[in-house]
Formats: sequence, structure tokens, C-alpha cells
Amino acid sequence: MVALARYRELIDNHIQQWIGRTPRTSLYSPMAYIMGLPAKRIRPAATLMSCELFGGSVSSALDAALGLELFHNFTLMHDDIMDEAPLRRGKSTVHMKWDVNAAILSGDAMLVKAYQLITSRPEIISTFNAHALMVCEGQQSDMDFEQRTDVSLEEYEEMIRKKTAVLLSCAMRIGALIAGASTSDQELIAGFGEELGMAFQLRDDLLDAFGDPGKTGKRLAGDLSSGKKTWLLIKALELEERTGSARLIGQLQLPPEQRDVQLMLSLIGSLGARDAAEQEVLRHESAALAAIEAIDVSADRKVPLLELAGVLMARDH
Amino acid sequence: MVALARYRELIDNHIQQWIGRTPRTSLYSPMAYIMGLPAKRIRPAATLMSCELFGGSVSSALDAALGLELFHNFTLMHDDIMDEAPLRRGKSTVHMKWDVNAAILSGDAMLVKAYQLITSRPEIISTFNAHALMVCEGQQSDMDFEQRTDVSLEEYEEMIRKKTAVLLSCAMRIGALIAGASTSDQELIAGFGEELGMAFQLRDDLLDAFGDPGKTGKRLAGDLSSGKKTWLLIKALELEERTGSARLIGQLQLPPEQRDVQLMLSLIGSLGARDAAEQEVLRHESAALAAIEAIDVSADRKVPLLELAGVLMARDH
Repeated sequence: MVALARYRELIDNHIQQWIGRTPRTSLYSPMAYIMGLPAKRIRPAATLMSCELFGGSVSSALDAALGLELFHNFTLMHDDIMDEAPLRRGKSTVHMKWDVNAAILSGDAMLVKAYQLITSRPEIISTFNAHALMVCEGQQSDMDFEQRTDVSLEEYEEMIRKKTAVLLSCAMRIGALIAGASTSDQELIAGFGEELGMAFQLRDDLLDAFGDPGKTGKRLAGDLSSGKKTWLLIKALELEERTGSARLIGQLQLPPEQRDVQLMLSLIGSLGARDAAEQEVLRHESAALAAIEAIDVSADRKVPLLELAGVLMARDH
Repeated sequence: MVALARYRELIDNHIQQWIGRTPRTSLYSPMAYIMGLPAKRIRPAATLMSCELFGGSVSSALDAALGLELFHNFTLMHDDIMDEAPLRRGKSTVHMKWDVNAAILSGDAMLVKAYQLITSRPEIISTFNAHALMVCEGQQSDMDFEQRTDVSLEEYEEMIRKKTAVLLSCAMRIGALIAGASTSDQELIAGFGEELGMAFQLRDDLLDAFGDPGKTGKRLAGDLSSGKKTWLLIKALELEERTGSARLIGQLQLPPEQRDVQLMLSLIGSLGARDAAEQEVLRHESAALAAIEAIDVSADRKVPLLELAGVLMARDH
């Protein structure tokens, strides 16, 4: 955690300075509030690390890193409205603390602020544009999937790729662009970020089902009991269909409060879906590591990014 | 209307082509819908005109013009949620036709699309960033003012400047930037747009109170009966306070349904607020015309922009 802690401190200081300069008006206060909530700062740290990996200076990437964290928090502010979420990082969400209109409008202004900070270099703006659109598309798919019963594993992976993985990929690619990395190096670091993001999100599904609620801070199997179609559940239903059984799908046809979550978890295990999910996480982790390995810089320069990967891969909450 | 009609046709064709290319998915359909509603296309026409004024080609400015119209429609989509408006241009608003979540998320993606089209030239992006933030600030002030009884004329003018006038100014400045106009010419055309935008919005207040509902398509004095603090009402209350009378403010203290709108209109007239508002519109119109006059290009090149100004200044609906 040594390297990661250093980058987090750099970005946290930069965020605190930004918060200090932010006007205390009704438009800007919600931005300062959400940016001030404790957070892991994975994306901005990734930008700084990627920039340094390719020989750029941290200071040249701090504003872009802050811009990416602003963008990430803009998506959270608006997603929380759409999900009617009361809490974010243990504190009131913006639309609860202020109101929905404040959360809509501050979020909009926050997206513009993100653009202002990410820089005005054309190739960086167009990279950011393309990724920001994918994030919106991912969120839309996530909402659309709630109304569907026929989501395939491929569609689910494409949804989490857009909703989660591409932003980590974008953060790393922008770091590389700032450092002036070659096109092939940009592709490698972007692939590293995307595969790491996929592994991270798929691990999230597994932790929801099989994690320790004492560590995750979430209700055990919250996704499962609400019937949310995660990779794990889609896979288990596919496997069950082949066996001709209907015990798991039968549970899903019950009203949520009548579902036997322990039975569902046990079926997911015995059908082999848990193992398959672990394999899928591993597949993405291996692809991430292969991508960073292929980057032609000395091993010691890769330490921070490998540390970040280690933390994301080994997490149990 | 000859010149204006030509620019509107150019931009309408470009918008129709864009709509044709837009995916028919839940994220993009609301964008195509709102962009397809009949509209005056004042801002994109202003970009094309300004670009041609300074010797640029219309084709070089079409994408930026489309981007500005996308931005304008993004603000309408989100403003309609905040105002709980059921109708926009006589048709269902996006949050009524789809739902609030669709309107939030499509609006967000629409803002990103606007950036993608407005171009990636650094000075254009930073111009757009600054103006987009002001538009958000203006909308925030407008909402804040609903909760306040002490809004001054200066504050009101600053609000409409940010909410309405700066976008017309931005549209013209971007046209000038694309054409490679000098800094002083950029300032002049931006000033022309801003003053014209101010006159337009102040005229709107007057039309709400004294316009012909058969032409405006709005309920007579809708702002006034709801107690919205427009320039006209703020000015009238200021003037009334000096006379020691309290008839107008007395009306405002009644519940909306008990207000005598005809009496209010007559008081606004007799206090001199209507004349003062007409003078204020004229002051901004004169400033706009002085700015365009000072631009050193031949008079015939200014015809389209003067025609646009004429239409905006002479409107009765």
C-alpha cells in the first residue's frame, strides 16, 4: 500500500484545494460535499500512476485526475437519483440532503467542471468524450436490464464494461496521453485498466453473494434477494436450465420476501456458477496482468500500478 | 426573413441527418425526439451567420452549430424536469413521454454529444466550458429566486444574462472563432449576442404581461398571476414602495387564485414600470446594434445577423 497511499495523498490534497476554492453557493456546495466524502480515489490515482509509468510528471496530470474524479462523482450524483439511493459512502446522497433538482443541476455543472479540468488537448477531450458516452450507455443498459428477464452473460459483461470498466481504462489512457506514450503503449495500459475494471466489478457480484457482510457493510446477497441479474445469477440460471431443474428460477418467481436466500446461494454453488464466476474474474485478472507485462518499461516503474491491481484483486469488501 | 430562412434550412437539414444517424435505443431516442421538435434554431443559425460574417464557410461551422443546439436542448430537457413542465413546444416533455430517469440520463449523454460536436479546438472548448457553467449558474439563480422576496433588478438581469443571453453570445463567439476572427471582433460579436439575448428575454417578460395570448400561446400574465419576480414586477414594486402605496404588493400577498391580474397590470402601467421595461429593452437593443456596427466588415455581410436581430426585436410572440 506504500505507493498507493502516496498517490492517494497527492490526489486528496489536490481535491481539498479544489474544494477550498469552490464557491459556497447552492450550485457548487453539493459538488464540494460529494467530493469531500471519503473515497478510494482509484481512478485519479490510476491517471497519476499511468502518467508516471510513461515518464510524465505527477503534477502535469493532477488536474486531469481531478477532472476524472469529478466526472465519476457526477455519475454517482445522478445515479443515486435514478436508484433513489438514500446513502452514499455512509452519508446522505445529494438529492436527499438538498433535493432532486439540486442534484440534477449540480451534477450537470459538475460534468462541465470535469471537462474544464481534464484539459483542452484535442486527443484527450475526444478520448474522454467517447468514454463518457459509454458510461451513460452502461447506466442505461443497467436500467433497461431491470425490465428484462432474458439478459445474456455477454450483454451483462458489456453493460459492466461500459458502466464501470471503461472509466478506469479512460483514466489510465489519459495519464498515458499526458505523458506522451506511444499508441501501442496507450492500448496496453487502457487494456490493463479495462480488464482490471471488469475483474473488479465481477468480484463485486461475488462479494455481494458470498462476502462477509461485516466487511462489505452490505446486506448479504442483497442483489440476489432483490432478483438483480448479476453475472452469477445469469450463469446459475443457464446451468440450471441444462439440468432440467427449476429450483433456482422457482425462487425468483416468489415475491422477494418469500425467497430463501441461503437455498439460492447453495444452488448457485452446487450448479457450479460460483466456480465459473471465480474463473471469469481470474480470466480478466490474467488479461490485465498480461497487458501491463507487455509494456516495455523497467519493472520497478510498474510497482504502483501492480500494487493498485493487487488491492483491487485481493479485496474482500 | 430571406437570409434567416436559408440558415434555418441548413441547420434543420444537418439536424435531420444527425437524427437519422442516431441509434433508436432508450438512451438516444429521447435526444432524437427533442431535437426533432419544431424550433426556431436561433443559436445554431447565429453560429453559422457569425462564422460567415468573418469569412468562414458555413460547412466549417455546421457541427459546432449542431452541438450548440444539442446543448440548448439538453438544458431544456433537464429544466423541464426541474420545472415539472408537461409540455415543450406543444408536445410531451421527455420526462412525461418516457420518465424522469430517462430524461436525466439522456440529457447527460446529450451534453457529452454536444461536446463531441462542438469540436476539440482548445480555445473553442474553453469558451464553451465557461459559458455552459454560466448557463447552469443562471438556472440555479432562477430556482433560488423562487424562494426569495428581495431579488434586485441587478440580480434579476444577471440571472437572465447567464440563463439566456450568454448562450446566444457563446454561439456567435464560437462562429467567430471558427472563422478565425480577431480578439476584438470576437468581443464585439459576443457583445452583440449577449445584448440581443438580454433584450429578447426582457421582451419575454413584457409579452407575458401585455402580449396577445392569441399570439403568444400562453395564458395572459401567467408569470404575474403566479407571482414570479420578473424585471417588470420587481421594478413596479420598487416604484410602488417610493409612492408609499401597497396595492400591488397587497395583491401578491393574496393567494394566487384571489389575485386581480387586470388590476396588477394596470398598476404596473400607472407606476411607470411598463415604460421602464420598454426603455430597458431598447437600451439592450441599442447596445447590440452599436456592437455589430463597430465590426469592420462591409454592411452587406451583416445582413443576416441584422435580420436575426430584427426578428428577435420585433417579435410579438
